[in-house]
Amino acid sequence: MTDSAAVPAFVSGEFFVNRRDLVVEWGHCDPAGIVFHPRFIEYFDWCCVLLLEAATGSSMAEMRKLYDFAGIPIVDLQTKFLGQVTHGDQISIFSTISGLKRSSFELRHALVNKGLVAVECLQTRVWCGRDSHDPSKLKSRPIPDEVIGKLRV
Amino acid sequence: MTDSAAVPAFVSGEFFVNRRDLVVEWGHCDPAGIVFHPRFIEYFDWCCVLLLEAATGSSMAEMRKLYDFAGIPIVDLQTKFLGQVTHGDQISIFSTISGLKRSSFELRHALVNKGLVAVECLQTRVWCGRDSHDPSKLKSRPIPDEVIGKLRV
Amino acid sequence: MTDSAAVPAFVSGEFFVNRRDLVVEWGHCDPAGIVFHPRFIEYFDWCCVLLLEAATGSSMAEMRKLYDFAGIPIVDLQTKFLGQVTHGDQISIFSTISGLKRSSFELRHALVNKGLVAVECLQTRVWCGRDSHDPSKLKSRPIPDEVIGKLRV
Amino acid sequence: MTDSAAVPAFVSGEFFVNRRDLVVEWGHCDPAGIVFHPRFIEYFDWCCVLLLEAATGSSMAEMRKLYDFAGIPIVDLQTKFLGQVTHGDQISIFSTISGLKRSSFELRHALVNKGLVAVECLQTRVWCGRDSHDPSKLKSRPIPDEVIGKLRV
Repeated sequence: MTDSAAVPAFVSGEFFVNRRDLVVEWGHCDPAGIVFHPRFIEYFDWCCVLLLEAATGSSMAEMRKLYDFAGIPIVDLQTKFLGQVTHGDQISIFSTISGLKRSSFELRHALVNKGLVAVECLQTRVWCGRDSHDPSKLKSRPIPDEVIGKLRV
Repeated sequence: MTDSAAVPAFVSGEFFVNRRDLVVEWGHCDPAGIVFHPRFIEYFDWCCVLLLEAATGSSMAEMRKLYDFAGIPIVDLQTKFLGQVTHGDQISIFSTISGLKRSSFELRHALVNKGLVAVECLQTRVWCGRDSHDPSKLKSRPIPDEVIGKLRV
Repeated sequence: MTDSAAVPAFVSGEFFVNRRDLVVEWGHCDPAGIVFHPRFIEYFDWCCVLLLEAATGSSMAEMRKLYDFAGIPIVDLQTKFLGQVTHGDQISIFSTISGLKRSSFELRHALVNKGLVAVECLQTRVWCGRDSHDPSKLKSRPIPDEVIGKLRV
Repeated sequence: MTDSAAVPAFVSGEFFVNRRDLVVEWGHCDPAGIVFHPRFIEYFDWCCVLLLEAATGSSMAEMRKLYDFAGIPIVDLQTKFLGQVTHGDQISIFSTISGLKRSSFELRHALVNKGLVAVECLQTRVWCGRDSHDPSKLKSRPIPDEVIGKLRV
């Protein structure tokens, strides 16, 4: 899954790196002809799920059965848009973990277009189960040791 | 447009404040039952356009005729997610300018749910026209003085 | 909620009519400058929820508590695109029920732009609860009589 | 690109068939845990572009240079939702042309999940250039013979 030669410095470190290739869709672009930026944020959300699934070998649905797990809501998002991306561009998104705490973790994503990093994104997310008093709400949980072990290379 | 009593501190200052009320849609939420966070980023993108249009009294289409203007691509995005938001929640988004440079500007958005700020967002954007050498590309332009004047209260 | 004078023929009948006004967003349009058509389908999905909520006086969340209810998946969708719609256009969407069966119902939506119907949509949906054998799946249920009564004018 | 053995009857005929495999994203699903159906409509829009690009060997951007071409707006959409699809499902979408007129064409898409057709979609689209009197508007054009030749197998 990892093509280490091409991993941008922004996402290199001691953790598993996932790479996702995709072609930017016509409908992801706005009347100015460039990607409507919330679509980038969708890409990075997907890449977070893909990273977790690739590293653990379990789907989100399986994680709900294996662990006290209901989702990984984001608490902080920082994104730099460095280059223009348009429909038809063949991009690669590299994703990794860049920090781990008891129940939260930090991810980094680098979107590469034509050999250059066009977007850099940093997400902080919380591992959550269901609140035992109100199952309609999410509540933070310690990240399972088994998951942490798999996220480290 | 401005309900000053309710403007959160994060967006108060010397510039025009726009307020947009909306109800969170079912389809904006994910299987965990909370807003899929790229949708918040869509909300803030819309609110940036609404702020510009409300302050200047011109639509994006009109601005393209009035000025050398093709779009306002984002270069930096910082968002803090402080509270859970779900479908049916009646939210208000307050938006303002928090910084002005020659061709770039900074915006702040505060999303209020049930009386509390649930999401804070900071965008840096660039005022762009078409590149005269390659009209398929955007190129930064000085923000027109007329627009700056209207953004100040 | 109903402005009967303006209700297009496509949605007039014996059932409750809901009207939703909105302004088409910049990010809803594609590089050709017109609405990316899946966004229209989002609008009609939202309008279906709004119609149900306006007619019954209950939110989707409340309906889950009041009835054996988990969602209203769509089984058939037919849409005609009759006129161009672009960002900044102030549109009205009129929605009504056009047929009721034991556990399914048909809705009609008419999107009006500049006095003309620009999009017509017909949805068939199924009232569903959770499957008692596998709660991760949806299963059709009879539409509650109380709901049917409220959908009729 | 075509895996003829697996092509569903709904999309088989005398025209080029394109196949796109994808994994359904978490953020494409709603609080009921199933795909938010406008996302299916996005999938089919993308698949229409992919079909044209694969058959002609030209990207949308290249088509704008080669032909009097600005877009292919949809005029009619008919979709049947036959089975449940959720995040993590590995789906294949088969797309083909099912009718050609002077300036409009009909496409069919079949979305296959776990060996069964879960969604069938029929689109009618118009080949458009820019209106010479008002370049902000689209106007129908005859489909180029060269494109028609490439769409036939």
